[in-house]
Amino acid sequence: MAKILDCTLRDGGYYTNWDFDKSLVNQYLESTNNLPIDYLEVGYRSIPMKGYLGKYFYCPIYELEDIRKRSLKKIVIILNEKDIRVEHIKDLLGPIVGLVDMVRIAIDPEYLGRALVLAEGVKKLGFEVGFNVMYMSKWKQYGDFIKELKNVDGIADYFYMVDSYGGVYPEDVIETMNLVRENTKCKLGFHGHNNLELALINSLTAISQGIDIIDATIWGMGRGAGNLKTELLLTALNSKEGLDVDFNALGTVVNSFDTLLKKYEWGTNLPYMISGSNSLPQKDVMDWVTTRFYSFNSIIQALQNQKAKVEDN
Amino acid sequence: MAKILDCTLRDGGYYTNWDFDKSLVNQYLESTNNLPIDYLEVGYRSIPMKGYLGKYFYCPIYELEDIRKRSLKKIVIILNEKDIRVEHIKDLLGPIVGLVDMVRIAIDPEYLGRALVLAEGVKKLGFEVGFNVMYMSKWKQYGDFIKELKNVDGIADYFYMVDSYGGVYPEDVIETMNLVRENTKCKLGFHGHNNLELALINSLTAISQGIDIIDATIWGMGRGAGNLKTELLLTALNSKEGLDVDFNALGTVVNSFDTLLKKYEWGTNLPYMISGSNSLPQKDVMDWVTTRFYSFNSIIQALQNQKAKVEDN
Repeated sequence: MAKILDCTLRDGGYYTNWDFDKSLVNQYLESTNNLPIDYLEVGYRSIPMKGYLGKYFYCPIYELEDIRKRSLKKIVIILNEKDIRVEHIKDLLGPIVGLVDMVRIAIDPEYLGRALVLAEGVKKLGFEVGFNVMYMSKWKQYGDFIKELKNVDGIADYFYMVDSYGGVYPEDVIETMNLVRENTKCKLGFHGHNNLELALINSLTAISQGIDIIDATIWGMGRGAGNLKTELLLTALNSKEGLDVDFNALGTVVNSFDTLLKKYEWGTNLPYMISGSNSLPQKDVMDWVTTRFYSFNSIIQALQNQKAKVEDN
Repeated sequence: MAKILDCTLRDGGYYTNWDFDKSLVNQYLESTNNLPIDYLEVGYRSIPMKGYLGKYFYCPIYELEDIRKRSLKKIVIILNEKDIRVEHIKDLLGPIVGLVDMVRIAIDPEYLGRALVLAEGVKKLGFEVGFNVMYMSKWKQYGDFIKELKNVDGIADYFYMVDSYGGVYPEDVIETMNLVRENTKCKLGFHGHNNLELALINSLTAISQGIDIIDATIWGMGRGAGNLKTELLLTALNSKEGLDVDFNALGTVVNSFDTLLKKYEWGTNLPYMISGSNSLPQKDVMDWVTTRFYSFNSIIQALQNQKAKVEDN
């Protein structure tokens, strides 16, 4: 059975700028203690960035200490490879040894080599290491990236395929898993996005192919169209595989994010469907959709221009 | 390529009690004229029922005349087999010959025999006939139902598999299509519900197996967790199959249902996921969810009791 990682606070933070009420976080930690989830990714650790970013973008030590006390789960934080270098590790990760079990790294395939250097430093501190490699639908366009995956062996504990655009289909999941397995012995993970409402079937397909770990978030809260919904994965695995699920705990935690859902209204819609279908970046779409200033039609026009590589949009 | 039937007004009427602003209906008809949709199902025709039901539950002749003038598409209405007998046909359908192209019949598999008698009467008036047979995930429990499908030949133009509970998976779609094909030569249709966010992949699977017609609705507006989203199907077929889609028309029609979506908030959630996963009737869940009086936890408890066949809930 694949392990499950819930990354609601980390991925959901794209909507709240990584601020969450502490009472909501506490409810989340209490409910997930009663659910068959293995890992909780609670945020980023980062060097100071320009502009305001909330608590769960930095995960200060006092917060991680409190989470550790409240949660029975393995705790995970993630680093943005584009911002973090090996020389930052001592300050960022040294103080959280023992508070965090796994450190994941969000990686652009173009910088796999640099990420390997960073990961070796992380590994030395004794953390489990996860590689979250983005843009899986375009990996074939990244030169020798696939062949270089052999270098991941012995460094990463999990190598994740990230469907950044939310546009892959079950057959793509199978094809990419096979391709990756030809090149690394590392355990595999899948992080789906829900632009085309394929996050569940892609994840179940990955599970049927022996994937080792699956990411999900409560109500699918996450960047752009959002992620695989934790409650959907658990409900499906309950009825299909007999996974033991405490539906009262699940109902409680889902309910507790209801106010945020009403406020931010994440989830898929036509612009996200178009961007997912055509492997267009959803960052722009998210900016356009969430400002609520642009009509669907103007967003769609901009996306069609992007697709046609028109510069001026 | 499968034909596409949009049944937004008919299935969405479960939320609005079949009342829709005429200006919205006109916008819908104008936009769909520019989209690759073959049939529009605009509502029920019915004998008078107890309690108030809006215009699109009865589809009066003046409305069908107006729709006929505005729309370039084939027009469809549906009959509820449980309420309509062959003796009602003359009054209900006689006056709409020429205004409507197809008459569908919503059928409980238990009453297939009675439906065949009704359908013969419909067919005699020259309509295309669609059989929408409910509860596909339980058909094996309906005795000789599958064998009796041979009687559909020559009467129905389309025989639809309806995933009433929204709980079937792609492999179930394939299995059921094969089972049905062993017993009837009738063209096949699929009507998905989205409890498990599987409506798209189930429909694409059906298309890959040569299904003849697929149902969808704008924003997935429909009973309970809702249907396959028309915009999702069209976007996926555009990028996968090169289907020509006017995304401005699609954006316009999706936008025009936005106010209703904000008011009624259809779509899947944990109670619908549980009911779908366990083939429990979504009518009750819809009543509980839409009153907004019951907490998720009390709904979930009631569903778990239903699943365990506890009487008192």
